[in-house]
Amino acid sequence: MMFSVSPFDSGLFRELLSDAEAARWLGDDAAIRAMLRVEGELALAQADCGLIPAEAAQAIADTAAGLVLPALKLATGTAGAGVPVPALVKALKQALPAEQARWVHFGATSQDIVDTALVLNCRGLLGLYRTRLEHTITALAALAQTHRHTLVAGRTRSQQAVPMSFGYKVAGWLAPLLRQRERLDQLEPRLLRVQLAGAVGTLAAMGEPAADVNRQLAQRLGLAPAPGWHTQRDSLAELAGWLSLTTGQLGKIGQDWLWLSQSEVGEIGFSNGGGSSTMPQKCNPVNAEIMVALARHNAGLVGQFHQALVQEHERSGSAWTQEWLVLPAMLMTTAVALGHAGQGLAHLQVREERMQANLALHNGVIYAEAATFALAAQMPRDEAAALVAAACREALAGADSLFALIHRRCGIMLDAPGLARTLVDGGATGTWFEQILAGVTPNAGQQASC
Amino acid sequence: MMFSVSPFDSGLFRELLSDAEAARWLGDDAAIRAMLRVEGELALAQADCGLIPAEAAQAIADTAAGLVLPALKLATGTAGAGVPVPALVKALKQALPAEQARWVHFGATSQDIVDTALVLNCRGLLGLYRTRLEHTITALAALAQTHRHTLVAGRTRSQQAVPMSFGYKVAGWLAPLLRQRERLDQLEPRLLRVQLAGAVGTLAAMGEPAADVNRQLAQRLGLAPAPGWHTQRDSLAELAGWLSLTTGQLGKIGQDWLWLSQSEVGEIGFSNGGGSSTMPQKCNPVNAEIMVALARHNAGLVGQFHQALVQEHERSGSAWTQEWLVLPAMLMTTAVALGHAGQGLAHLQVREERMQANLALHNGVIYAEAATFALAAQMPRDEAAALVAAACREALAGADSLFALIHRRCGIMLDAPGLARTLVDGGATGTWFEQILAGVTPNAGQQASC
Amino acid sequence: MMFSVSPFDSGLFRELLSDAEAARWLGDDAAIRAMLRVEGELALAQADCGLIPAEAAQAIADTAAGLVLPALKLATGTAGAGVPVPALVKALKQALPAEQARWVHFGATSQDIVDTALVLNCRGLLGLYRTRLEHTITALAALAQTHRHTLVAGRTRSQQAVPMSFGYKVAGWLAPLLRQRERLDQLEPRLLRVQLAGAVGTLAAMGEPAADVNRQLAQRLGLAPAPGWHTQRDSLAELAGWLSLTTGQLGKIGQDWLWLSQSEVGEIGFSNGGGSSTMPQKCNPVNAEIMVALARHNAGLVGQFHQALVQEHERSGSAWTQEWLVLPAMLMTTAVALGHAGQGLAHLQVREERMQANLALHNGVIYAEAATFALAAQMPRDEAAALVAAACREALAGADSLFALIHRRCGIMLDAPGLARTLVDGGATGTWFEQILAGVTPNAGQQASC
Amino acid sequence: MMFSVSPFDSGLFRELLSDAEAARWLGDDAAIRAMLRVEGELALAQADCGLIPAEAAQAIADTAAGLVLPALKLATGTAGAGVPVPALVKALKQALPAEQARWVHFGATSQDIVDTALVLNCRGLLGLYRTRLEHTITALAALAQTHRHTLVAGRTRSQQAVPMSFGYKVAGWLAPLLRQRERLDQLEPRLLRVQLAGAVGTLAAMGEPAADVNRQLAQRLGLAPAPGWHTQRDSLAELAGWLSLTTGQLGKIGQDWLWLSQSEVGEIGFSNGGGSSTMPQKCNPVNAEIMVALARHNAGLVGQFHQALVQEHERSGSAWTQEWLVLPAMLMTTAVALGHAGQGLAHLQVREERMQANLALHNGVIYAEAATFALAAQMPRDEAAALVAAACREALAGADSLFALIHRRCGIMLDAPGLARTLVDGGATGTWFEQILAGVTPNAGQQASC
Repeated sequence: MMFSVSPFDSGLFRELLSDAEAARWLGDDAAIRAMLRVEGELALAQADCGLIPAEAAQAIADTAAGLVLPALKLATGTAGAGVPVPALVKALKQALPAEQARWVHFGATSQDIVDTALVLNCRGLLGLYRTRLEHTITALAALAQTHRHTLVAGRTRSQQAVPMSFGYKVAGWLAPLLRQRERLDQLEPRLLRVQLAGAVGTLAAMGEPAADVNRQLAQRLGLAPAPGWHTQRDSLAELAGWLSLTTGQLGKIGQDWLWLSQSEVGEIGFSNGGGSSTMPQKCNPVNAEIMVALARHNAGLVGQFHQALVQEHERSGSAWTQEWLVLPAMLMTTAVALGHAGQGLAHLQVREERMQANLALHNGVIYAEAATFALAAQMPRDEAAALVAAACREALAGADSLFALIHRRCGIMLDAPGLARTLVDGGATGTWFEQILAGVTPNAGQQASC
Repeated sequence: MMFSVSPFDSGLFRELLSDAEAARWLGDDAAIRAMLRVEGELALAQADCGLIPAEAAQAIADTAAGLVLPALKLATGTAGAGVPVPALVKALKQALPAEQARWVHFGATSQDIVDTALVLNCRGLLGLYRTRLEHTITALAALAQTHRHTLVAGRTRSQQAVPMSFGYKVAGWLAPLLRQRERLDQLEPRLLRVQLAGAVGTLAAMGEPAADVNRQLAQRLGLAPAPGWHTQRDSLAELAGWLSLTTGQLGKIGQDWLWLSQSEVGEIGFSNGGGSSTMPQKCNPVNAEIMVALARHNAGLVGQFHQALVQEHERSGSAWTQEWLVLPAMLMTTAVALGHAGQGLAHLQVREERMQANLALHNGVIYAEAATFALAAQMPRDEAAALVAAACREALAGADSLFALIHRRCGIMLDAPGLARTLVDGGATGTWFEQILAGVTPNAGQQASC
Repeated sequence: MMFSVSPFDSGLFRELLSDAEAARWLGDDAAIRAMLRVEGELALAQADCGLIPAEAAQAIADTAAGLVLPALKLATGTAGAGVPVPALVKALKQALPAEQARWVHFGATSQDIVDTALVLNCRGLLGLYRTRLEHTITALAALAQTHRHTLVAGRTRSQQAVPMSFGYKVAGWLAPLLRQRERLDQLEPRLLRVQLAGAVGTLAAMGEPAADVNRQLAQRLGLAPAPGWHTQRDSLAELAGWLSLTTGQLGKIGQDWLWLSQSEVGEIGFSNGGGSSTMPQKCNPVNAEIMVALARHNAGLVGQFHQALVQEHERSGSAWTQEWLVLPAMLMTTAVALGHAGQGLAHLQVREERMQANLALHNGVIYAEAATFALAAQMPRDEAAALVAAACREALAGADSLFALIHRRCGIMLDAPGLARTLVDGGATGTWFEQILAGVTPNAGQQASC
Repeated sequence: MMFSVSPFDSGLFRELLSDAEAARWLGDDAAIRAMLRVEGELALAQADCGLIPAEAAQAIADTAAGLVLPALKLATGTAGAGVPVPALVKALKQALPAEQARWVHFGATSQDIVDTALVLNCRGLLGLYRTRLEHTITALAALAQTHRHTLVAGRTRSQQAVPMSFGYKVAGWLAPLLRQRERLDQLEPRLLRVQLAGAVGTLAAMGEPAADVNRQLAQRLGLAPAPGWHTQRDSLAELAGWLSLTTGQLGKIGQDWLWLSQSEVGEIGFSNGGGSSTMPQKCNPVNAEIMVALARHNAGLVGQFHQALVQEHERSGSAWTQEWLVLPAMLMTTAVALGHAGQGLAHLQVREERMQANLALHNGVIYAEAATFALAAQMPRDEAAALVAAACREALAGADSLFALIHRRCGIMLDAPGLARTLVDGGATGTWFEQILAGVTPNAGQQASC
């Protein structure tokens, strides 16, 4: 279901946790519009199949298209039935002459209308996600290219590890989004299917032409026809997974941004950071914080959606209600997270001088691995490793640089700038960078899952 | 935080998934009112301690009390800072002369205001929960008393097991709610504490009188004073647990209602069941469905709140945001679930004739355990067990009753009505029923955890 | 990671919650064997690329293949490092002459070994899932065919709704599993990729041939080559989603089994049901219970896996550990759930006479919708609906059948057996049944997402 | 249930993710021993009440006490019944003469045995948690005292905010643990209750003395007597919440440790950090990583336990099974997390010189708030704020210190060392520090919830 999506629709958080574009397909009004559209197209599809009179169908479709139905008008009816459709059907019928009203919602069940409307609104949102995903991909690709030859400390388990290309680090933010694009292509045909199956999934009340009506309605809405899926919620759960994968990956980027923008690291900053009245030095990385929070929010919700897979019999009142409590929030969360990623990228400031300074911390011990492999060209590898380890310990304890200490121990002065240059192209950096970036512009037949 | 609480605040689902009483303490307006109140009382508390001029304090308090601040006015400022307080402070200052405005929010941090406002609104909600909990307890106690001597099939692992008192089954719905009352008593002193700790939790900006201001503000608001708890979210998480325990227990009741009201069981029904236009026989147990759905919703959210316990340093932007995404929904969920429990109880119909009929299903094999223990008075227990087991198999396969088959095998005709009478008082039923019901009216010194 | 998988590996629950076949790829021994294999093949791949001496590589591979390394031997080392690889490498080196030992794990990082070993073991498990999925699909297809013309009560929102084909209900259990097969095909190329990226993901320590070594190792292991994905966990999370979708769908089947096998419904039973010593009539649907419990277990775990997507920088100690705590359990859960589905299907007893009896409950009101549509052929639809609704109310309150009451009201005696025959083929039943069943045997080019 | 607890019982991770002390009450053997004990004491309690022969009871108790029952022996029986008790009872009976064997498990249900055994083992674990909690509290209190006057950067939203006492920061780690102690005191009476209620919760099969047997058994085991709670799982869920609160708070500490020990921050280190063969400079904070991972693990599991609150009727096969899949892992997780906290504290190195250095970063802008309040003594507050903000911007952009820039702008040279001294005692620091530390040694009548 696609009803309300708070706290996203809060006025207070409207700019922070909501999204006007996404709201076109979320919230009560979007839901009601979509349900009315489905009722209208259903009538036309039934007329196509000779099930109901053509004039009645046209009247229903026209009236449904024009009807303005405030959500509050349906509140009492929704409470009585547990679903909004009976009240909506009643309102639609009341707007029509009795002779035509009787053909409204003919042989359909509430869930047919709600689910098909949901799919329609999801289609709108998937379009939005695609646009924003492309935007994010493009911005990350440009950032990666710009900093292909910027050296930064690679960090593992919260410690500086080995220097690497910052552009390649950015490419690592990018690669999963390319796979998300591929996953979306594969998911859509399973998701964008009509729901029209009647009370228990057989569409019995529509008689002989039942399957034809399903096909006809699907065609009118630009969806695929499908046997009923009232309690087969796998494709919706797959969507929920995709949403949480998307925000999870953006959360990883946000987490990196938080860690990189700490006062003591300072390798990136944001020109739109949040300020503080009493602490003028503060520049809070709001976009990054939200990206992390939304990743964890969707991760919490995705499991709840999977809980709702356990639906008994032909339609489950409780499990279906659970879906409504979860999916709208996930859909909005994803739109908003993509929005914050875009904002963050637009305001991101890369501070190369701080990257350089951080590489120089601790007397250059971050070059230990590279130094070992460089020395191993001139002495047995074990010996090189032992020598560098000892020099490292000394560098960490004292004031001398790792390179000076190595020189003191074995007489070899390694070429520090040369090593740095090497590391920015280290190992597979070049090959893999090209490979990932090549995936940005997908060609026919190209495998995105680099 | 206590901002928006959707899909609960959806117009469409207003009667079903929302609650006007709870909304007094939830949503933007309630949040803004509470935050303004905190700003006002803070100024007065600071004046009490000689930190700011008394006239300024009074002006701030008066202005805060009267200021009407639509959420949308704070939206842009909230987006910029990631929290609504800077925009709220700015609006409050703008409503005051400069001389007094400068003392607004003096030395406080945004989280002080938001957290204290949250606690105030939680206090209102806890009062509401107490009222509804008492209402539910009273209704369940009455139902239990009425049906103390109604026999119903006890069911385990989805199968009929042994007959029991329906009133005692109802007492089993009641007992955990008595413990929830006790838990709430224990939780409140940990939760209803002021938050006033300044930028990093030391209230440094308030100088010498800092701890006094905290005490003074607490006293003015009827809360306990407390060292800052900006990143100590244990009591909020305990509250989240209490909420989910409450809805979980109501979900268990709802689940029993769903199972008991199935067409084939029919032992209870609801006079407010949801209907269907094409299936006039339908009477959907809407309250029960919602109670189960909300139990699973809170269960999904409580884990997410616990994820937010991992807050780095003195204040965490991302973990704090996560809380806002979860707690309002949990608070509303609980109010709504209690509302549905009350509605369901008000419309519950107990169908004793169906209980009798179901006990008679399968030729009375549900009396197997009782028959075994009755026969064991007249023959070795093993022999009795073997005899009843064999009779059971025959009863399940054929048309004869368990009692007739036992008679045929050993010549003993058990007193079936007598056995049923025994079972309605079976074993500890009487003692435990009294014990649980006695807990409904708590006395001083009485241990509720029966 | 694929280490231990309890409570599944508990001796107590070995037959119930574990699986010997799946255990071939789960648990410490499987992990250690796979990691040793990766170390061996890595050495050979490096020799292929001229990075290390060929004889050393061969010796490493041979020794790794033969080495028996009990998990306990690695316990202390694992605790010290937080990962098992350093201890494993040390043990492998100790089994080799110093000259060759020095080339073990050359330029690799612990996570390269663990992740690649994980992927190898996942590949084994995916094979097992495929086999079991096919088995379940085949069994469900046969069951669906057998009962294509068995009429059963369709049930919505816990109430009887409209009669339908039981075979078609079974086809509804089947359809999502066909989509799971399709999803698995799409997931595999993203998942079955080598991990070999060195300390920070650039494989810098392997120098020029780095990307070649990655390709070479991938080829040797039958995996795809790939840029490092140390903190890009999207494909693992996608796998977790697939696992939970699989168990979720099996949980839906189990839930239906629980509801259908209740004492009062009794439409199915299980010849392997669990008994009770004192209640000989009990036949607990153990397989169904476990299928539901495992669905909810995986649904709980999948969200936790998504939480671990938020991995900072180049490798995250805490998020990576979180994965190990979750994924092995999910992998085993899925194998076990598929096992229980197979067992349940093998012992499932369909009781057509109880299906008939339940359709006759409540004086036939379940035929209300069908009666309305049948009458609508002979009178205005609104009139038919009103007439049937009134007859329904009377039937529910009294002793007369819906059909008799309709006859009394309008003189039309509907053909009840004829209606039942119609409903077993109702609406789209035939078309959709064929369509779903046709998906069981996939053809080239056929779209499984029916 | 308290069966297996993996991946904690993995050999590989035995030292890292498991705990020998906790294992005394977890795992198959502990479960079997406890269940046998319950069967033995149940027989004695029944003899006390005249329900079964005293000699038989003694024989049962003696045999149960001595019986060694490997878990694997119960595997097949467990699989058949879905619970281990029938197989355990059978094995116990087989070890007794028939005359006495018949009185084994008289009138009890499987869940009585499993739940009471679980409570017994939980009691053991709660004792362990108490011990470790006290240990952690003591260590944190000592650390706080030692560093009461050490100045450190307070950090909010990932940015340096205001200097503060490091000892007070440590007190903030401590305070929630004091509340956890209080919560445990309140939880225990609700949790440590016997389960003995028979097939459907009435203990009908034990006849008149049923409630007495319950009391007698409780007394023998040192538990409270209680009406049956087969499907009232609120106190177990409360325990699950307590466990996750505990690990959540330790996770917050671990998170702080990770952030503080980053290469670029370096304010703490660990003498037991994990090393790397190729990066000798690495010192991975293993304890901290595990504390965070376990916090998130329990947070994931607690919601799953709450899902299992929705138990239908008198006993639920599926929801009960769900509990077993979750609670043992949570119990072990908590023990292990407390263990890592203890280890981490034992190896924690505080680096005051790095704290000093970090305070000096960015030309002292972290003193902006303090400077503003200091200047406000000599000029209007707004003017002071504006002046400091401008100086801040200049300090961040250039090379001059905040204090020099303030001096240049207004001629006032603030006493920087004096300010620092002030901040270490800033605001409420002293009062609140004493208050929290006073809670470490609880007195009668003292409210721990400071």
